Amino acid sequence: MALTLDAIAAGQVFGSATYTVTAEDIVAFARQWDPQPFHLDDAAAKGTFFDGLAASGWHTGAITMRLLVTGEFQPAGGLIGAGIEGLKWFRPVRPGDVLSLRTEVLDVREMRSKPSHGLVTVRVTTVDAQGEPVQTFTSPLVVARR
Amino acid sequence: MALTLDAIAAGQVFGSATYTVTAEDIVAFARQWDPQPFHLDDAAAKGTFFDGLAASGWHTGAITMRLLVTGEFQPAGGLIGAGIEGLKWFRPVRPGDVLSLRTEVLDVREMRSKPSHGLVTVRVTTVDAQGEPVQTFTSPLVVARR
Repeated sequence: MALTLDAIAAGQVFGSATYTVTAEDIVAFARQWDPQPFHLDDAAAKGTFFDGLAASGWHTGAITMRLLVTGEFQPAGGLIGAGIEGLKWFRPVRPGDVLSLRTEVLDVREMRSKPSHGLVTVRVTTVDAQGEPVQTFTSPLVVARR
Repeated sequence: MALTLDAIAAGQVFGSATYTVTAEDIVAFARQWDPQPFHLDDAAAKGTFFDGLAASGWHTGAITMRLLVTGEFQPAGGLIGAGIEGLKWFRPVRPGDVLSLRTEVLDVREMRSKPSHGLVTVRVTTVDAQGEPVQTFTSPLVVARR
């Protein structure tokens, strides 16, 4: 059930399904979008900064978006980000990692430029099976008032 | 030819190849990573915030990473981001858009925690065929000293 702006308040926290990262998935994403040795081949990744196959940060971001779209937080009009602030990757994502989200509402405000919508700022943290963060960012989302 | 930390200085600007966005590409990315109606189907996108098929912002990000990896700026050790700051999407990316990058070095510094590397902060702006920005962000990159 989609939440209109009035139903969203700072402090609300939403969960998500899980996503299991595989070596095949890491390599397939990297071939298309981030073809660097440490994202393509475990042997080639030895001795690099990552010292073993690691997911592209943009892959972790894409997985996060998928978990958002299929997750508990369903704002009216869809998940429409105006930008991203303070994105940090805390550690490389590896084959076998099981990721899920913690999405927290930080702020809700009206939009002067577009009165039919409001801006909801969320902090989206992607955590591993131990609950340790692998990525976090905040994003202002455009949400319909009705 | 990869640039070691010493060869990189604030003010340097690097270009990239171009990437032509297609409707098929937008839909294929969205099916996997951002399955919302306005990224999947032009008819379904009518009447939504985007009012027509638009690329996922994460797709624009992934295209940007691809153009970075294949572009003029080749730091030693690869393109390894520690995070993303101030990412803004200025307008939806549409089928037919021809994207390229302007990558500007903002800052170069040593890394106390890892003396073999330094941090190079770049502003990466993705522009359309008219040179108008569709996305911008800054990112601290981990670059090898040698």
